[in-house]
Amino acid sequence: MAVARQQDVGYDYVSDQAAASQWLSSLTPTPRPPPLTVESINPKVIKCEYAVRGAIAIRAQVLQQQLIADPGSLPFDEVVQCNIGNPQGLNQKPITYFREVVSLCDHPALLGKPQVHELFSADAIRRAHRIIDCLTGRSTGAYSDSQGVKACREDVAAGISARDGFPASPDDIFLTDGASPGVHMVMQLLLRSEKDGILCPIPQYPLYSASIALHGGTLVPYYLDEESQWGLEITELKQQLHTARSAGINVRALVVINPGNPTGQVLSEENQRRVVQFVRDEGLILLADEVYQENIYEAGKKFHSFKKVSRAMGIGEKDLALISYHSISKGYYGECGRRGGYMEVTGFSKEVREQMLKLASVNLCSNVSGQILMSLVMKPPKAGEESYENFVKERDGILSSLARRAKVLTEGMNKLEGVTCNQAEGAMYVFPRLRFPEKVLKVAAVAKVAPDLFYTQRLLEATGIVMVPGSGFRQVPGTWHVRCTILPSEDKLPGVISRLSTFHQKFMDEFRD
Amino acid sequence: MAVARQQDVGYDYVSDQAAASQWLSSLTPTPRPPPLTVESINPKVIKCEYAVRGAIAIRAQVLQQQLIADPGSLPFDEVVQCNIGNPQGLNQKPITYFREVVSLCDHPALLGKPQVHELFSADAIRRAHRIIDCLTGRSTGAYSDSQGVKACREDVAAGISARDGFPASPDDIFLTDGASPGVHMVMQLLLRSEKDGILCPIPQYPLYSASIALHGGTLVPYYLDEESQWGLEITELKQQLHTARSAGINVRALVVINPGNPTGQVLSEENQRRVVQFVRDEGLILLADEVYQENIYEAGKKFHSFKKVSRAMGIGEKDLALISYHSISKGYYGECGRRGGYMEVTGFSKEVREQMLKLASVNLCSNVSGQILMSLVMKPPKAGEESYENFVKERDGILSSLARRAKVLTEGMNKLEGVTCNQAEGAMYVFPRLRFPEKVLKVAAVAKVAPDLFYTQRLLEATGIVMVPGSGFRQVPGTWHVRCTILPSEDKLPGVISRLSTFHQKFMDEFRD
Repeated sequence: MAVARQQDVGYDYVSDQAAASQWLSSLTPTPRPPPLTVESINPKVIKCEYAVRGAIAIRAQVLQQQLIADPGSLPFDEVVQCNIGNPQGLNQKPITYFREVVSLCDHPALLGKPQVHELFSADAIRRAHRIIDCLTGRSTGAYSDSQGVKACREDVAAGISARDGFPASPDDIFLTDGASPGVHMVMQLLLRSEKDGILCPIPQYPLYSASIALHGGTLVPYYLDEESQWGLEITELKQQLHTARSAGINVRALVVINPGNPTGQVLSEENQRRVVQFVRDEGLILLADEVYQENIYEAGKKFHSFKKVSRAMGIGEKDLALISYHSISKGYYGECGRRGGYMEVTGFSKEVREQMLKLASVNLCSNVSGQILMSLVMKPPKAGEESYENFVKERDGILSSLARRAKVLTEGMNKLEGVTCNQAEGAMYVFPRLRFPEKVLKVAAVAKVAPDLFYTQRLLEATGIVMVPGSGFRQVPGTWHVRCTILPSEDKLPGVISRLSTFHQKFMDEFRD
Repeated sequence: MAVARQQDVGYDYVSDQAAASQWLSSLTPTPRPPPLTVESINPKVIKCEYAVRGAIAIRAQVLQQQLIADPGSLPFDEVVQCNIGNPQGLNQKPITYFREVVSLCDHPALLGKPQVHELFSADAIRRAHRIIDCLTGRSTGAYSDSQGVKACREDVAAGISARDGFPASPDDIFLTDGASPGVHMVMQLLLRSEKDGILCPIPQYPLYSASIALHGGTLVPYYLDEESQWGLEITELKQQLHTARSAGINVRALVVINPGNPTGQVLSEENQRRVVQFVRDEGLILLADEVYQENIYEAGKKFHSFKKVSRAMGIGEKDLALISYHSISKGYYGECGRRGGYMEVTGFSKEVREQMLKLASVNLCSNVSGQILMSLVMKPPKAGEESYENFVKERDGILSSLARRAKVLTEGMNKLEGVTCNQAEGAMYVFPRLRFPEKVLKVAAVAKVAPDLFYTQRLLEATGIVMVPGSGFRQVPGTWHVRCTILPSEDKLPGVISRLSTFHQKFMDEFRD
C-alpha cells in the first residue's frame, strides 16, 4: 500500500518524509482546537470559588449515589448534609399557611370548588384571592413588574414598617430570586475594575468573594475577632479601609452579615450604630445581609435592622446609602428551593435607581411564586385569623428546636480535643476553630490541600458527614475552622455528634505529634 | 449680623469674600457627594439597553395607573401590552394539567386527603407523587442540585430525544430561571474583553445586546434579509465574521434565534445545515435560541432543533459546541412569571462544563417550581392518560388561535399606508417596516428620538397600544420598524387593529410631506 501510494504521487517515499506526512495529513481533517477551553474561558470565572458547593459537596453526591446503588458498601448508612443551610433538605416541614396560599395561587380553579373550604384555611383562601386580584392577568404565569408585584412589595414594606417602627415604601423594594441575584446586581453596578473594592468580613459567606471575583473587583477584608465572639471592631474597619485606600483601591461599600454567616454572631445595637457612623464618615454604601433576621437563639440578643438603627440615630434616607437583603430561604420557613428574596434600597438618587430597575428588567422579573412567599414571610397570619394558632405553633416549634440544636452542637464541638467553638447566637451554623497537630499540616501540604479541607475530606469518607472547610470562607492565616449547620433534626443530631466525636478522636490519635 | 460677624473674625467683610465664604462653609457640614452616582456606576451597566422594558413600557405603566385613578381622563379605556411576549398577561389561561401538578407539589398535604381525587386528575396526582419522591427532602422548598432536579432533567432529556429522534442526556441539561440567566451565564464564560465578539442577528432580541454590553464584549451584527422573509444568508455571516476578524475581534459564538424574535421567520432545514457547516468551518460555538419551538403557524413550516439537524448530518457531540436554549415562557403554555428554562450543553470538555456548573452553583439553583414546569412542558400527558384529551384541546386551541392572530395582524399591518410586513411564520410577533414621510424624521430629530420611537410614543398616547420601536432591536440603518405581539385575544384584536389603523392614518396625514 505504501509503495503504491508512493508511486501514485510520484516522489521518493523514503527520502521525503516531510512531504509524505503533509500529504497524509491532507487526507484526514486536522483536529480543530475546541472553540472553548479552560484556557480561553473568562479568567474572572476561573478565579471565582464557591466552597459551599465545592469539591466536598460534589464528592458527597457521588457517595450518596453509591449508597443507593450499593447499600452497605460504605462505612456509613447515609450522607448528612451539614454543608449548606437547606432546612427542608433535612426534612424540616414547610409552614402550612404559606404553602396553602401558594398552592391556591398556582391553581386558582380550586377557589371555585366547594371542597376548597374543607382543604384550605379560610384566611389562606382570602389571602390567595387578594393576591390573584393583584397579579397581571390574574396569573402567576404572567411576567410581573421587574421590581416585583406591587401588592407583594406593599406587604413586604408593611412588614418592614411593623418590624422597625419606621416607614418603608414599596417603591424601595426589589423582589429577587433569593438574596444572591440581588448581591450580584449591586456588585455589577459598583465594580468597574480591580481598583474598586468592597469591604467584606472574614470569615464571610463566599457569595461575596465569588460575586466580587466574577465582576472583577477587589475584596477588601476586615477580620472579625474570634476571641470576642466574632466581634466587629471599628478600629479594624478603619485600618483595613486605610490600607486599601493607600494601595489605590476605591472602596465603595461595606458588607455586614448580621446575624453572621458562618460565624453566628448577632451584633449589638451599639456596635451597629458605630458601623453606621463609620459608613457615613467614610462615604461608603452599606450592604446589610440580614437574611438570618428571624434566627436568633441567644437569650438577651435581638435583631435590629441597620435601617432601624440608622433612623433611630436620626439619619434619614438622604444621609445613608443602604441596601438591606432578605430571603425566604432562611428564618423558620427555609424555602430555599423556591428562590425568593428582596432588597430594600434607600438613599440612592432617582437616576441610580433607574439603572437598578434597568438591570432588573433585563431578566424580566423574579419568579412570581417566590415573590408571593416573600410577601407572606413579611406579613404572616395575624392574631385572630384562622391559621394564626397553627402558624405560631409551627414557627415557634422550628425556632425553639433550632435554638436547642445550636446549643447542643456548640457544646459537642467544644468537647472535641483542640477545638473551641463560639456559641451560635443566631443564623444556622457553628464555625469551630480546630487546632491540628503539626503532622496534619505536613500531610495536607504533601497532598496540596488546606488542612481543614483535608479534615473535612477524611470526615466525609469516614462518617458521611458533610462540612465546609473554613478556608472556603477565608480565615485568619494559620487558623483552621469548619462550618457545620445546626440543621440535622433533633433525633439525628446526637448521632451526628457521636460519629463526629469518634472520628475526631481517631483523627487526632492518628496524627498526634 | 454680617457686621457683627465681620468684627468677630477680624477681617474686612467687603474686601475678602473668598475667606468669608470659606469660613461660612466651615460652620455647616460639607454636603458629601453621594457614594454612588450615574457617573460612578459601572459604565457597562450604563451602556446596556433593554427596549422591551424601556421608556415606552415605563410610560405605559404610568398611563395604566392613571386609568385606574382617574378613568375617562385619557382618550382610551385600557392599555394593551403588545410590547412583550407575556401571554397570560393578556388573559391566556394556563394549561390545567401543568398547574394541577405544580399545585400538588406545592402543598403535598393535599395528596393525603380523600377530596384530592375529586379536584385533581389521576395522572396529575401520579405525576406529583413521582416528582415529590425525587426531590431533596421531598420538598420544593429544598435547594436542588445546581444543574436542577435530576428527575426533571431526565424528563427534559426524554422530551428532547422524542422530539429529535436522537439521544439526549440529563447530564447535558442545566435547568435555569428562564432562558435569560442561561444566556448571561454563557456570555460571562465567553467574554473576556471588548476584543471578544458574538455574532448576533439584526434585528435581534435585545437580551443579547444587553448581555454582551453587561459583560463587556462586542456584538458583531449580521443582518437578516427582510426582502426574503428575514432570510439568514451564509454569505452575510462570512462577510461580517471576516470584517470583525480583520478588526481584531475574536469572534467566539454565533447566536441564531429560530423561530425568529422579533422577525417571526422559521429557518428551513437546508438553511440550518449550512449554518452548522459555517459554525464548524469557523470554529465557533453555536448558541441556538429555540424558545419558540412550539410556535409555528405557517403551513409547511416545521421546527428543527440545531442538535437534530447536526446529528442528522453525521456531526457528533465532539464535533460541534452547541448550546440550545428553551423556556417555559413561550409555546402554548406561556408560563413567563414562573421563570423556568433549560440549556442543553453539548460538545464541551469536562473541564469547561465544570466551570459552568460552578457558575450555576454560585446562585445555588433555579426555582424548583419552574424546574417542574419545564419537565412537564417537555413531557406532557400521553395518549391514554386521563388528562390527555383536555390537554390536547387546550394546547391546540391556543396554538390555532395564535396562528389565526398572526395572520390577521400581518394582514392588518400590510393595509397601513407605507407599511410592509412579513408573515409571522412562528414566534409571537410581527415586525413591520414603516416608511415615514420626511417630516417625521425631522420632527423626531428635533425631539432627539428615533423616528420609530417617536411613532410608538404617539401611538401609546393616542390609543393605549404599547409596541416596541424597531430601534430597540437594531435594524438596517435608515429603516424603521415596530414590534407588535400577536397576543391580544381574538375578541380584542380587531379593535386593536382598528385603533391602530385610525391612528396611523391620522399620523401619516399630519406629517405628510
